[in-house]
Amino acid sequence: MATNPEMMSNSQERTAELVRRINDLERQVEDLQEQLPDDRVSIVLFSGDLDRVFAAFIIATGAAALGQEVSVFFTFWGYNAIRRKRSLQGKAFLEKMMAIMSPGDSRSLPVSKMNWFGVGSKMLRAMMKKKKVASVEELMEMARDMGVTMIACDMSRDVMGIRDDELIDGLEPGGVGSFLADGLKSRVTLFI
Amino acid sequence: MATNPEMMSNSQERTAELVRRINDLERQVEDLQEQLPDDRVSIVLFSGDLDRVFAAFIIATGAAALGQEVSVFFTFWGYNAIRRKRSLQGKAFLEKMMAIMSPGDSRSLPVSKMNWFGVGSKMLRAMMKKKKVASVEELMEMARDMGVTMIACDMSRDVMGIRDDELIDGLEPGGVGSFLADGLKSRVTLFI
Amino acid sequence: MATNPEMMSNSQERTAELVRRINDLERQVEDLQEQLPDDRVSIVLFSGDLDRVFAAFIIATGAAALGQEVSVFFTFWGYNAIRRKRSLQGKAFLEKMMAIMSPGDSRSLPVSKMNWFGVGSKMLRAMMKKKKVASVEELMEMARDMGVTMIACDMSRDVMGIRDDELIDGLEPGGVGSFLADGLKSRVTLFI
Repeated sequence: MATNPEMMSNSQERTAELVRRINDLERQVEDLQEQLPDDRVSIVLFSGDLDRVFAAFIIATGAAALGQEVSVFFTFWGYNAIRRKRSLQGKAFLEKMMAIMSPGDSRSLPVSKMNWFGVGSKMLRAMMKKKKVASVEELMEMARDMGVTMIACDMSRDVMGIRDDELIDGLEPGGVGSFLADGLKSRVTLFI
Repeated sequence: MATNPEMMSNSQERTAELVRRINDLERQVEDLQEQLPDDRVSIVLFSGDLDRVFAAFIIATGAAALGQEVSVFFTFWGYNAIRRKRSLQGKAFLEKMMAIMSPGDSRSLPVSKMNWFGVGSKMLRAMMKKKKVASVEELMEMARDMGVTMIACDMSRDVMGIRDDELIDGLEPGGVGSFLADGLKSRVTLFI
Repeated sequence: MATNPEMMSNSQERTAELVRRINDLERQVEDLQEQLPDDRVSIVLFSGDLDRVFAAFIIATGAAALGQEVSVFFTFWGYNAIRRKRSLQGKAFLEKMMAIMSPGDSRSLPVSKMNWFGVGSKMLRAMMKKKKVASVEELMEMARDMGVTMIACDMSRDVMGIRDDELIDGLEPGGVGSFLADGLKSRVTLFI
């Protein structure tokens, strides 16, 4: 039996229709892939309390160990965790005041509760050491080695008059846009 | 050579099978599109500290500038940021106590660290002004102009006995369900 | 008219090409479905303040009521919310100190602001009761009944020397990995 031309052209039309639908699907799937979150975790570290900085870096290193891209955005009191030393040089009056009242480096971070002028902080460090838990400094070192991106907020630095030589190495400068660029592609976003 | 009828029907079956698979894919892709997060950022503002309110609105306005739908859900101490004035009229004893001890408006917000009865707060405002950083009030005004949705938690208002005329304009009422409705469709969710 | 063999084989090739593209799409859609967040909300409860614990469980029960899988990960001061009683037995010196200074159970939780040695906390509880808002203990009971997963952080327990019999029932042990396993699949992640 011979195929009749009409059937043939019908079949071609049907195929063309399928091709159109597949083209559409491919475009939509590509869009979906772009809109899906990456394997990424973004943390705003606003707090400068030893316990909160510790929690932030336990999560950051834990996520990095699970293969996530991690970034920590340091702002406000979070700067106390990335200060290498205190410096008053070249600072305006209020900036000096702020520097004097802030911890000189991460080893002087207070705890958010029961700090009692630093006793609580020393107690917590002692208890952690006894249980062989890594210190905040070790965790931050680990985080850096694992490729965790550490972003130091431009605006906080500017407002508090902090200079680069007061800060630890390995920080990237960035603004709220840097946090959002990462955060909007993240599976987990936390403000600590 | 003539096409034999069996071949023809095989080809039709194959086509029907392709159509079924494409139908399935289209349904699944539609489901995926619905389940994907929107371009949306949701913030619970629980805190009433100047520094934290400031951080919340830097993120809110930054996200709005990037084209995200943003909502800020004010609850508990976060109410201090949206109070226009203090009023004791018609309040029960404990509600009055709470009102008296809370900042009368956003200009009286304390800072979370080093507040020293308001000196720290004034210092921070002065340092920000010097660096030409927008004030919290300016940021909140900007947020409103950019279409950021501001939701005032029903339950907090009820517990603290706050009346509408004590609050700034442009707030929407809402409960935890309002926060979750937005939050579950968001790319970034933060508790500040 | 007879179909010529070349046309036929062209059509077969075209069909084979469509099948390849559909196969690809099906694989990609399956990948997308796996990478999409689940209907899930994950909360780190780091704080032990009455007001913050309350907010955490308002969100947790609200999300569970909307059909979300919810997990709350208790760490650091968050342990104060799941302590049944204080015990000093078998504790080392610093662990005893920590236990003595911490609230003995959830009924003794302070508030994060205006606590005044517990007056603020009693005030807040009284104001909530008057407005018929559920207490923290009722909310936690509800959460458990609604299937909210409560995870008690191993590391915090170890550092503070807390024993199982000091804690309320229905907790699962877990580390940062447990939080991340849930968090990375969640629509909403909060650090409270």
